[in-house]
Amino acid sequence: MATISPVTIRRARRGDVGVIVGMLADDPLGAARERIEDPLPPCYFQAFDVLEHAFHIQLVVAEDDTGAVVGCLQLCILPGLSSQGALRALIEDVRVASPWRGRGIGEQLVQWAVSEARARDCRLIELFTHRSRVDAQRFYARLGFRPSHVGMTLRF
Amino acid sequence: MATISPVTIRRARRGDVGVIVGMLADDPLGAARERIEDPLPPCYFQAFDVLEHAFHIQLVVAEDDTGAVVGCLQLCILPGLSSQGALRALIEDVRVASPWRGRGIGEQLVQWAVSEARARDCRLIELFTHRSRVDAQRFYARLGFRPSHVGMTLRF
Repeated sequence: MATISPVTIRRARRGDVGVIVGMLADDPLGAARERIEDPLPPCYFQAFDVLEHAFHIQLVVAEDDTGAVVGCLQLCILPGLSSQGALRALIEDVRVASPWRGRGIGEQLVQWAVSEARARDCRLIELFTHRSRVDAQRFYARLGFRPSHVGMTLRF
Repeated sequence: MATISPVTIRRARRGDVGVIVGMLADDPLGAARERIEDPLPPCYFQAFDVLEHAFHIQLVVAEDDTGAVVGCLQLCILPGLSSQGALRALIEDVRVASPWRGRGIGEQLVQWAVSEARARDCRLIELFTHRSRVDAQRFYARLGFRPSHVGMTLRF
């Protein structure tokens, strides 16, 4: 049984952007998509400013007991007419820094998102995982998610 | 070769809510989720009011040359840090009224969404289709979408 490291989930701040982008880049799919440079390209900070003003989106980080950021998750609340006008939640960009994987941090992040979605009266939470991320699919299944849909994408 | 019925895509209005909900209910999955009553339950109008004030979401309808609403689609533009801070678009609730299916109306709705997402500088469009909707998956594949992801859901 793996050790569980309890973390604090809090809203991301501008000063966290570099660490978050580092986590997004730290896997085979992300490495090809991100630009890790010093200083970090301004596009990331511009996106952060948009996120900070998007009242329907929360970008959060998991902080360990030393204050280090070790994980992140983005939660979006979406209105719609279907299912009797139910709100739905979309979880995106879940990452845990590689040295901290296997300690229950991803689970704490996702459980935070589930609680938050329930508290906001959502009736459904959705997420996309790349077909190649078989471990992620097993992880979400363990937390009660069902592979009910096909996630289709078109990139420009 | 099927007949193509050209439609006008326009923003949904409050007076369209009943027709849209009728289309959402008009399939095996939707029938179990919606409430078609006269008058329509207020929850749908409350959800419409939220949508109308959500600047990041567009609920649109397809109107035929007589002014009848024959299809709908919801497009959401989502900011995020990943992919160098790229905007992404989410397509939801695509429906075509049953007598008008097979006339290219769904395709016109999705092509509108693709153009709009490009015009808004999105780098990715995503959508969920239920695993059982094999025809829908074939339809989206024909429009260039790839079944790259597993769509996982948790319902409350």
